[in-house]
Amino acid sequence: MSQAIVVIGGGAAGASAAARAKRLNPNAEVVLIEATDMITHAPCGIPYYIGGIVKRREDLATYTPEEFEKERGIKVYINSIVKDVDVDRKAVIVERNGHRFEVKWNKLVIATGAIPAVPPVPGVDLKGVYTIRHPAYAYKLLEDLRNARKVAVVGGSYLGLEMAEALLELGKSIVLIEKGDRLLPKALDRELAEIVAREVLEKGVELHLNEEIREIVGGNGAVKAVATDKGVYEVDAVILATGVKPNIWLATRAGVKLGVTGAVEVNEYMETSVEDVYAAGDVAEKTHRVTGKKVWIPLAPSANKEGQVAGANAARGRVLKFPGVVGTAVTKFFDLYIARTGLSEEEAVANGFKVEKAVIKARTKAHYYPGVTEVHIKMIMDSSTGRILGAQVVGRDPIVAGYIDVVAVAIERGMTIEDLFFADLGYHPAVAPVWHPLIVAARVLSKGRF
Amino acid sequence: MSQAIVVIGGGAAGASAAARAKRLNPNAEVVLIEATDMITHAPCGIPYYIGGIVKRREDLATYTPEEFEKERGIKVYINSIVKDVDVDRKAVIVERNGHRFEVKWNKLVIATGAIPAVPPVPGVDLKGVYTIRHPAYAYKLLEDLRNARKVAVVGGSYLGLEMAEALLELGKSIVLIEKGDRLLPKALDRELAEIVAREVLEKGVELHLNEEIREIVGGNGAVKAVATDKGVYEVDAVILATGVKPNIWLATRAGVKLGVTGAVEVNEYMETSVEDVYAAGDVAEKTHRVTGKKVWIPLAPSANKEGQVAGANAARGRVLKFPGVVGTAVTKFFDLYIARTGLSEEEAVANGFKVEKAVIKARTKAHYYPGVTEVHIKMIMDSSTGRILGAQVVGRDPIVAGYIDVVAVAIERGMTIEDLFFADLGYHPAVAPVWHPLIVAARVLSKGRF
Repeated sequence: MSQAIVVIGGGAAGASAAARAKRLNPNAEVVLIEATDMITHAPCGIPYYIGGIVKRREDLATYTPEEFEKERGIKVYINSIVKDVDVDRKAVIVERNGHRFEVKWNKLVIATGAIPAVPPVPGVDLKGVYTIRHPAYAYKLLEDLRNARKVAVVGGSYLGLEMAEALLELGKSIVLIEKGDRLLPKALDRELAEIVAREVLEKGVELHLNEEIREIVGGNGAVKAVATDKGVYEVDAVILATGVKPNIWLATRAGVKLGVTGAVEVNEYMETSVEDVYAAGDVAEKTHRVTGKKVWIPLAPSANKEGQVAGANAARGRVLKFPGVVGTAVTKFFDLYIARTGLSEEEAVANGFKVEKAVIKARTKAHYYPGVTEVHIKMIMDSSTGRILGAQVVGRDPIVAGYIDVVAVAIERGMTIEDLFFADLGYHPAVAPVWHPLIVAARVLSKGRF
Repeated sequence: MSQAIVVIGGGAAGASAAARAKRLNPNAEVVLIEATDMITHAPCGIPYYIGGIVKRREDLATYTPEEFEKERGIKVYINSIVKDVDVDRKAVIVERNGHRFEVKWNKLVIATGAIPAVPPVPGVDLKGVYTIRHPAYAYKLLEDLRNARKVAVVGGSYLGLEMAEALLELGKSIVLIEKGDRLLPKALDRELAEIVAREVLEKGVELHLNEEIREIVGGNGAVKAVATDKGVYEVDAVILATGVKPNIWLATRAGVKLGVTGAVEVNEYMETSVEDVYAAGDVAEKTHRVTGKKVWIPLAPSANKEGQVAGANAARGRVLKFPGVVGTAVTKFFDLYIARTGLSEEEAVANGFKVEKAVIKARTKAHYYPGVTEVHIKMIMDSSTGRILGAQVVGRDPIVAGYIDVVAVAIERGMTIEDLFFADLGYHPAVAPVWHPLIVAARVLSKGRF
């Protein structure tokens, strides 16, 4: 009998795992089970669908289930909910259109992703309160929001900012509520978060930092207002962008061990504590390559690679290792591009590093070249070794988002600020100044040593 | 008596050396001697001044001589030609406005840059034949070219392409003559050079590859035509973009040793073979960090850093080392951005590597995001170790120029394609696809291993 590899979840990690497993073991029967009608979907695109930049819901998926079946030879069950996992019998119980059936596996990949973390306050079930979850539901959200005039966005992280942009594009008024003392508190330290906040205010957002949601107030079953510890704001709808959590329920049914982060514990082969059961993507925790500690940073690029590793190893057995992440992330607010990698100053200090930092302003092109803009960079180093620990970038040229990739690689390779200063980065008046902003940041951090 | 540090040449390397020396040793008397009336000038900007993108000649310098004198405390001699170097007496002989004077030094930095390499053919001295040399002469060139209708650009490397763009912007017809079998032959292998050639043809350039200039034909003392080994082309002016060579005359007067490349030999401290004499920038050769061999790659970012190292060591003695370059370079032709780093396939093979390569086409953003464009990447690896040796990139989004910085750092750190595949590069639909094009290239190069 040929090997059966079953993957639960058709998002980035799951689809990647299924495709990889089939590619490396064409004789295996690879089955992908997805709860909605979309696979290879891109939740990161939802704000741009809501805002009208992406026109068609179908665009938020790379492949249709049919393409995956026909071109890849993978059996795809859509609209199919896995109700249980039986590890002893090596089977999953699936429900589709009210019917239950069983799918047997030799290897199982759990890629059930993340789900919104809803704050435990009254009113979250009211009509007009939304979480951003899956492209499959995005059209419904768009329809529902049509008549809303004023919307509260709760949470000032990536999704909150992106949804604020989208809703402004739709002509809504926005109240943005963030319980932290700054926007993007997990991504940025104060210096660059303040630049983002200025932009948010300039675009007309009513911004409330240091405020925690206490209640969503309804009337006639619909949202009337949001109450925080500091005020009550009348709104017609509420977007809860209050973070996500790993969707671990099925994993716990399979009996796999959870890690310190609350996500599924995996080793570098993406193996869980249960034999023949792998986990990949947002449901799994990752190793941070700077601290060596387990972290839960649910992002698509890493999910894709973890899926690749899980699928390869499920098909061939320990052929590939996932080395972990350094916390690279990118977002934008209108034309302000925001990117970060490594540890923020706050994270570095919390991890016991003694840090030095530089916050610089530089140009993105030669000073004489049209379209030159400003970029703000914060760079953080370990003061005992000079090793780069992290960087944050904010600027109006999309090219600055790419700076962070250079720093990500530098951090992965343990580069010091001196190594970065001497990096042979490219120059052309139209794309960078002759002293690249990253090199300026490294030089400023050296405090005159170079 | 305080230390005297004399720097010959006010370009990238020289100005950088002088500024650094003064900063690290404020008591030193630092003297910068420049032949023209501009310092910290940007020859890379000349094509954009000619093409009308940069309006003012002054914009092609970062600092005026006055600023350098007043703000940095550096003595600047402009319009001053160093006629000789006397190493025994530690003096340079300077001529300005017909007067000669002597400047004594304890440390000397030679930063005389590069000069055009003019092909040894008849007619190069005719009126209407130009080399691109120094921003100080750019206005004259612009004036002279006003009445030219058809211009031959000889040389299809960076400068030739950039000048072709500039002259097209001015409405000229262009005959572009390159003796190699492709455009940018030292930068790109055939695959990506062909994409550039298609664009050049589409913009209406009359392109002649595999043709070598034999004569510039004049009449009444002015240019009438360019003759190659294959044809004669009537033109009104000729731009010789036939490469540059190190401007070593003064260095040889100082008795310093030249290296295998013909440029001044320096060690990692930028010391020449003569005690207390340093060289930096285009006049000096560099170490290639992939091959370990000496190369001559005259580019501004490296010149700046070499100047920094020479200035620091002249002021303080062996405080900083220059590790060399990996051959990163960027250019553009209209909206086609072209970048490369490391070794081309041709260079890798010539250096004895057994190589494997991938040439891929990918998207620069999420497939659903507006403004998504195509990028072509060639990546070259050492087939025995998997180590990345080089990459070339061509695309219409300026962000692709930044890709090459990631690869430059990867190459400097000896990364394999597997290391690059697992690099934590950033993702946002507006700035990159979820599978970053560099990661796709690494994956394709793995031939199914990941």
